[in-house]
Amino acid sequence: MTQTHILPCSDHINRQILLARTPVGALVTGDFTMTESPVAAIGDGQILVHNLMLSLDPAVRGWMRPTTYRAQIKPGNVVHGFTIGRVAESRSPRFAVGELVECLGGWQDYAITTADELVRRDPEHSLEELIGVFGIAGATAYHGLFDICRPRAGDVVLISAAAGAVGSIVGQLARLAGCHVIGIAGGSDKCDWIKREFGFDAAVDYKAPDFLEALRAVCSAGIDIYFDNVGGSILETALGHINIGARICCCGSVSSYDGIDAPFVSQLLPSVITTKRARMEGFVVLDYTARRNEADKRLGRWLKTGQLKASIDIKDGLENAPAAFIALLAGNTRGKAAVRLT
Amino acid sequence: MTQTHILPCSDHINRQILLARTPVGALVTGDFTMTESPVAAIGDGQILVHNLMLSLDPAVRGWMRPTTYRAQIKPGNVVHGFTIGRVAESRSPRFAVGELVECLGGWQDYAITTADELVRRDPEHSLEELIGVFGIAGATAYHGLFDICRPRAGDVVLISAAAGAVGSIVGQLARLAGCHVIGIAGGSDKCDWIKREFGFDAAVDYKAPDFLEALRAVCSAGIDIYFDNVGGSILETALGHINIGARICCCGSVSSYDGIDAPFVSQLLPSVITTKRARMEGFVVLDYTARRNEADKRLGRWLKTGQLKASIDIKDGLENAPAAFIALLAGNTRGKAAVRLT
Repeated sequence: MTQTHILPCSDHINRQILLARTPVGALVTGDFTMTESPVAAIGDGQILVHNLMLSLDPAVRGWMRPTTYRAQIKPGNVVHGFTIGRVAESRSPRFAVGELVECLGGWQDYAITTADELVRRDPEHSLEELIGVFGIAGATAYHGLFDICRPRAGDVVLISAAAGAVGSIVGQLARLAGCHVIGIAGGSDKCDWIKREFGFDAAVDYKAPDFLEALRAVCSAGIDIYFDNVGGSILETALGHINIGARICCCGSVSSYDGIDAPFVSQLLPSVITTKRARMEGFVVLDYTARRNEADKRLGRWLKTGQLKASIDIKDGLENAPAAFIALLAGNTRGKAAVRLT
Repeated sequence: MTQTHILPCSDHINRQILLARTPVGALVTGDFTMTESPVAAIGDGQILVHNLMLSLDPAVRGWMRPTTYRAQIKPGNVVHGFTIGRVAESRSPRFAVGELVECLGGWQDYAITTADELVRRDPEHSLEELIGVFGIAGATAYHGLFDICRPRAGDVVLISAAAGAVGSIVGQLARLAGCHVIGIAGGSDKCDWIKREFGFDAAVDYKAPDFLEALRAVCSAGIDIYFDNVGGSILETALGHINIGARICCCGSVSSYDGIDAPFVSQLLPSVITTKRARMEGFVVLDYTARRNEADKRLGRWLKTGQLKASIDIKDGLENAPAAFIALLAGNTRGKAAVRLT
């Protein structure tokens, strides 16, 4: 069964943001370049997705480095990224024109994909919800906390990048699981915000001169779970406060993405892992795709009851994606960072 | 029920090796001192154990540092250590004079203990077997491999300190579990020995100038399990070869015991843990005391069938314990290091 085209393919002009060069150190807008070209005709089994909303995820900065869990984004490649889009053309029986989908659609208006690369999304939800709480961030928070950290009521949970897309949801889910939740965020405004908006029990400003003392003060009972989005010296500091049986979810290490050779220096590893019988476990949300419905259902229920709040930080226009991504990596956004493409 | 004494208590002269000072860097015999004094009379509920065989374990060097999972051994303390001994006097109904026991009896001829601190041992086995394969080393290998690493047939298992008490047993158990087993040991003689004696599929000499290349060559299929007894640069190297879903058992970090502030420097952590979905888990055998019978039974069965070989490196005389321990830490022993006290 082949769907008819909405428009003849030559009418689709595709703006694409490419990586101009392999970035060194902090990203700058000059690391990106934008092109325009007509969309090629799709082949049998292919699906053309019109991207509506682009998810900005710090992991993408990591993918510009040679060694991760997926192919490196190289100069000349369209920058990779998750999108919510609508099927514009389909030569697959599995998706019809007009369906709402999530895919690795990239930093561009149109993506040519196949059915296996698409996740069908519920049009009952807004695009903002689909890119955030029902998107990669929500699934990452859900599986990272429940499957990797396995929280028990009464656990002390420490979360870095707590005002971010993943961290803000992890904190709320940990509260729902009966945990005592401490967030690390940059600046007193963000710290106040995560307590007020998301119910964190405590928040510590990593930019404050008394950060270490403040962290020690709120962690006096020790940490049972550390949900790590940043790596580096904050991970080292957290290790100094773990309790016996602690679980450390290695979800991201944004502190190292800019400095490809920056070593992790620890006075504590591996002996603290041994002596505290701790478990440090890595986690890539793509492994949990088969359980997407489970995450969606539960997050949806909590969203409906108001026990879970979604926060989104949207910029308009594909051309603004590089600046928005740079702002995200610099810690200058709150909640889920995304770009509206239409 | 109170047991009668074998001898009046004043007849027991107790030689004790004390820590003379908190060691800095590599241990030297001057860090220890020996004293002699009569054994005090035991109180109600106490048991006097006559130590027969002293286990030398690298972890004890760690216990001389301030922060581990147990109280620091301080200057003036009897050096801690596991022993196999015989009950010499008992004022507890739970142990009778003459019973064979394992305890943290310390570097001394006699230890005053309580029933809760003793594990009853089977006199069918030799003292050599009780201190080695049925001792802390065997239990560490058994629980570390099966409970922490969870081997599957076909896994590639890398083991550091593979010619040591724990490593040599881990290698044999991993072979029994259907794994491909690679050992790291110091010197070509030890490497040949672990292949010939314990059936390691491959061995790599960490003292050889081509160590890294040789390790890379034997790890071309990647590592599914790394059983880490040493930490430091060998851990870092192993991390560079792990497969998706790898399990790293943090059992010991002998490379850091001498240098209390030696940092662990890694180009790979924590991002390789994330991208490889690896689990790095710490482990202290004392947590598995309740399952000692399980380990004893299975190890005993394999020992009987000849599928498990025990190797022991014994020195005679308590006074030689410091030199024997220093030799162990320098990597100059093979198999289980122990001191015969009588």
